[in-house]
Amino acid sequence: MKRDEFDTWSRDRLEQVEAALERWVPALAPAGLGDAMRYGVLDGGKRLRPLLVLSAAEAVGATDSEAALRAACSVELIHAYSLIHDDMPCMDDDVLRRGKPTVHVKFGQAQAMLAGDAMQALAFEVLTPEDDSVPLALQARLCGLLARAAGQDGMAGGQAIDLASIGRPLDEQSLSDMHRRKTGALLQASVMMGAACGDASPQARQALSEYGAALGLAFQVVDDILDVTQASSTLGKTAGKDADQNKPTYVTVLGLSAAQRRAQTLREQAQAALARSGLPDAAWLSVLADKVVERDC
Amino acid sequence: MKRDEFDTWSRDRLEQVEAALERWVPALAPAGLGDAMRYGVLDGGKRLRPLLVLSAAEAVGATDSEAALRAACSVELIHAYSLIHDDMPCMDDDVLRRGKPTVHVKFGQAQAMLAGDAMQALAFEVLTPEDDSVPLALQARLCGLLARAAGQDGMAGGQAIDLASIGRPLDEQSLSDMHRRKTGALLQASVMMGAACGDASPQARQALSEYGAALGLAFQVVDDILDVTQASSTLGKTAGKDADQNKPTYVTVLGLSAAQRRAQTLREQAQAALARSGLPDAAWLSVLADKVVERDC
Repeated sequence: MKRDEFDTWSRDRLEQVEAALERWVPALAPAGLGDAMRYGVLDGGKRLRPLLVLSAAEAVGATDSEAALRAACSVELIHAYSLIHDDMPCMDDDVLRRGKPTVHVKFGQAQAMLAGDAMQALAFEVLTPEDDSVPLALQARLCGLLARAAGQDGMAGGQAIDLASIGRPLDEQSLSDMHRRKTGALLQASVMMGAACGDASPQARQALSEYGAALGLAFQVVDDILDVTQASSTLGKTAGKDADQNKPTYVTVLGLSAAQRRAQTLREQAQAALARSGLPDAAWLSVLADKVVERDC
Repeated sequence: MKRDEFDTWSRDRLEQVEAALERWVPALAPAGLGDAMRYGVLDGGKRLRPLLVLSAAEAVGATDSEAALRAACSVELIHAYSLIHDDMPCMDDDVLRRGKPTVHVKFGQAQAMLAGDAMQALAFEVLTPEDDSVPLALQARLCGLLARAAGQDGMAGGQAIDLASIGRPLDEQSLSDMHRRKTGALLQASVMMGAACGDASPQARQALSEYGAALGLAFQVVDDILDVTQASSTLGKTAGKDADQNKPTYVTVLGLSAAQRRAQTLREQAQAALARSGLPDAAWLSVLADKVVERDC
């Protein structure tokens, strides 16, 4: 029942997100840059991060839907830019993403790099509307949360560890640290940015932060599992890539069945944190934690 | 006399900027990322953008020196990241910058790309201190100005035009449009971010915006002139690069002596805008406009 309601709710919200991205990612950016940016972010992906933002905003009773929508688009822009850069030849050198040629394959490396750079800037543009349709204090909070999740202490730092770990054994602690930054920080920030759009007690905020941390790690554990259990055609990206590149993953470090158990434990931790939050409207966050662990692509 | 005073003032302020960058660009970012970031931004460059921020802040009587210092460092971080990405093989493919090997030569392409990405995020982290030592409304304003200057409508968009213009004739209008975005937007934003740190009348703000636009274009005209008149050893970067790459420049479009006259005209426009601003303390901005045009590197 909850699932059906969630599906209806999320379909509606994702339409809003797609329409907003369509509006905010400029078709008219100069010299083909807009085409590359739009190709990299429109019509693709599961939009997990926007859904986390919007679910968290609803959970804390946010009334400022403009702010939540902008936050949802900003995290997706950061995520999409990171995929563009990550796929480039000097990084993962991947040619397939979401079932389509990657941005650098289609537009060239220089344009791909610039599109990623411009999308990072655009994320902060989206958070700072000049008409002040989002209160300035909230704009500042959202920019701060996003910047820290994207930067050296978050996503970019995690990618640097990832690069340095190719072909090297990592223990589980180091692997977790890498993924907390690389994937977890932006997922957790999505939750916290949604929460910033409404009023939540410090206790609720702390619980949501723990929910976000558990969900972020669960997401990566499942990603590692799917990389070995699914075909490229299901994933929409090259499967078996981590093993080919000799990258440490939860599956190589823990083994497949222990990794699967770990994903379940993290799901339970996420649900327990939600229960601790005391928030009455956290149903969508609960569904999302289940979906992250149960997904097959 | 003014020049001597300016030199004393700017030496003092640049020491503060260097110390702040030293503090904020993390030595401990993971897996060598911090080393690449610090290499790319510390101990190098003329620091024109930070000086514009701090001069404009003084011109409007800004009392919040913490905000101005953070703004100064944030524009330098954006500038430095753009140089790192611009120098990469898929872009300008340059090996020399500020007399040293470029970041990708020293740290590899992947690390250079990540360092640039992390530095863009860091610019927004610097603008959003969590201790609220900068008022939240001002944090939001500064983030908005910086994001727009860095993104598709500013620097990244200008670079896309630059890429697309290689080997193609551009008329002067298109060349100006490209440079207004590529170099001008961030220089102008530096002035406006400084101005945002204090109180200025709408008239003064408008005049400062025109000053920033003229100075921004003058900077690029002079850059194009120096590219043909100076040796690499003086510039600290590869001279004659634009001609080698068959890129349109003010010198190729206007000819050398007309380009030199244009730089003088833009200097006069910048000074006239300052006079219109009615600001009593705009002396440093005036000196900077002169220095931009008179520089030999």
